[in-house]
Amino acid sequence: MKFVKIPAIAISRLSVYARNLALLDQKGVEVISSVRLAEICGINPAQIRKDLAYFGEFGVRGVGYYVKELLFEVRKILGLDREWRLGLVGVGNLGSALLRHAHFMQQGYTFVAAFDKKAKIIGVQIGNVKVAPIEDMNRLIRKKGVEIGVIAVSPELAQKVADRLVAAGVRGILNFAPVQLQGPPGVFIENVDFTLKLDVLCYRLTSPISR
Amino acid sequence: MKFVKIPAIAISRLSVYARNLALLDQKGVEVISSVRLAEICGINPAQIRKDLAYFGEFGVRGVGYYVKELLFEVRKILGLDREWRLGLVGVGNLGSALLRHAHFMQQGYTFVAAFDKKAKIIGVQIGNVKVAPIEDMNRLIRKKGVEIGVIAVSPELAQKVADRLVAAGVRGILNFAPVQLQGPPGVFIENVDFTLKLDVLCYRLTSPISR
Repeated sequence: MKFVKIPAIAISRLSVYARNLALLDQKGVEVISSVRLAEICGINPAQIRKDLAYFGEFGVRGVGYYVKELLFEVRKILGLDREWRLGLVGVGNLGSALLRHAHFMQQGYTFVAAFDKKAKIIGVQIGNVKVAPIEDMNRLIRKKGVEIGVIAVSPELAQKVADRLVAAGVRGILNFAPVQLQGPPGVFIENVDFTLKLDVLCYRLTSPISR
Repeated sequence: MKFVKIPAIAISRLSVYARNLALLDQKGVEVISSVRLAEICGINPAQIRKDLAYFGEFGVRGVGYYVKELLFEVRKILGLDREWRLGLVGVGNLGSALLRHAHFMQQGYTFVAAFDKKAKIIGVQIGNVKVAPIEDMNRLIRKKGVEIGVIAVSPELAQKVADRLVAAGVRGILNFAPVQLQGPPGVFIENVDFTLKLDVLCYRLTSPISR
């Protein structure tokens, strides 16, 4: 496999393929045509072929893709062929919902630590984890082997939390706070910002034509 | 203003500009250079100028942008110069967190209705709204003037919910369920799928070089 710079959007699509292939596999589907797979994924067939071509040759002409095989390959490409350990910072409404979120578990993601500064929530068990005080972050992140930090604190605190995560050795951050975070080279930050998505909807609903 | 097809990613950036301009305005900043605005937004200055150029001429050479004026214009472009009424379907962990989410309110989004099928949550007041039974969706969506439907149900139910929202006249959907939803032309769907973002992080953390 060559390692070329793959655009994030192509990676997101691979993740959509993986998810749908897993569903097909659960249903006992063994082979699927690229046209049908594309339809299920809501993506055009040429795009699927192009995305997969970054990583090698998949599928058999005139047959399609072997579901189990392609799923295995795509999961390997994405690094999803193993468990990933997550640490949450900020156990408010959103943070608690994330800790209880069933889909994380199904997809190889496990919360192994959660941190907050509010005394009344410290020690409370939510989902898999017991909430720890923010002072224990550095120690527990190393001890539990947290690989990805999930930030669900207020926007004012988010950068400080990101800095502490990075200082503790975390190299991947999923940020739910509506601010742009800075990280040093080698640290990857993805933002989940649903107010931006709402703004896109408003724009489309407001504008008169062809958006 | 000409209406051209603007890529969603440019709209998201406009929304980032609006958010940061609002913060600057709150701090009493009156004028800002494009270089400084770009820095705050985490975007390069040429990109800002290019994004704004879709909509007209902004800023004064050698001076920069007048914060209040640009904020006003960008909010108008995005359709954020008024309130938007949201209706939530699915008042589980994530849904409840959304109803309580402070940032929605600050940005002109208001939940005016929430629906669930679980008897024990119906009638409960969360944030602004009292949870209504799913059977009342059609009637209440029209009565309350819901413009954007927010879907926080399980993936198996999400398409059915989307269909009902559309049937009730909703043209914008923010979908938190990890599935691709289909809608008729003229209906806009944005997905907030954080497991996809996690997958992107895993890929970046797994791959050896330059991602």
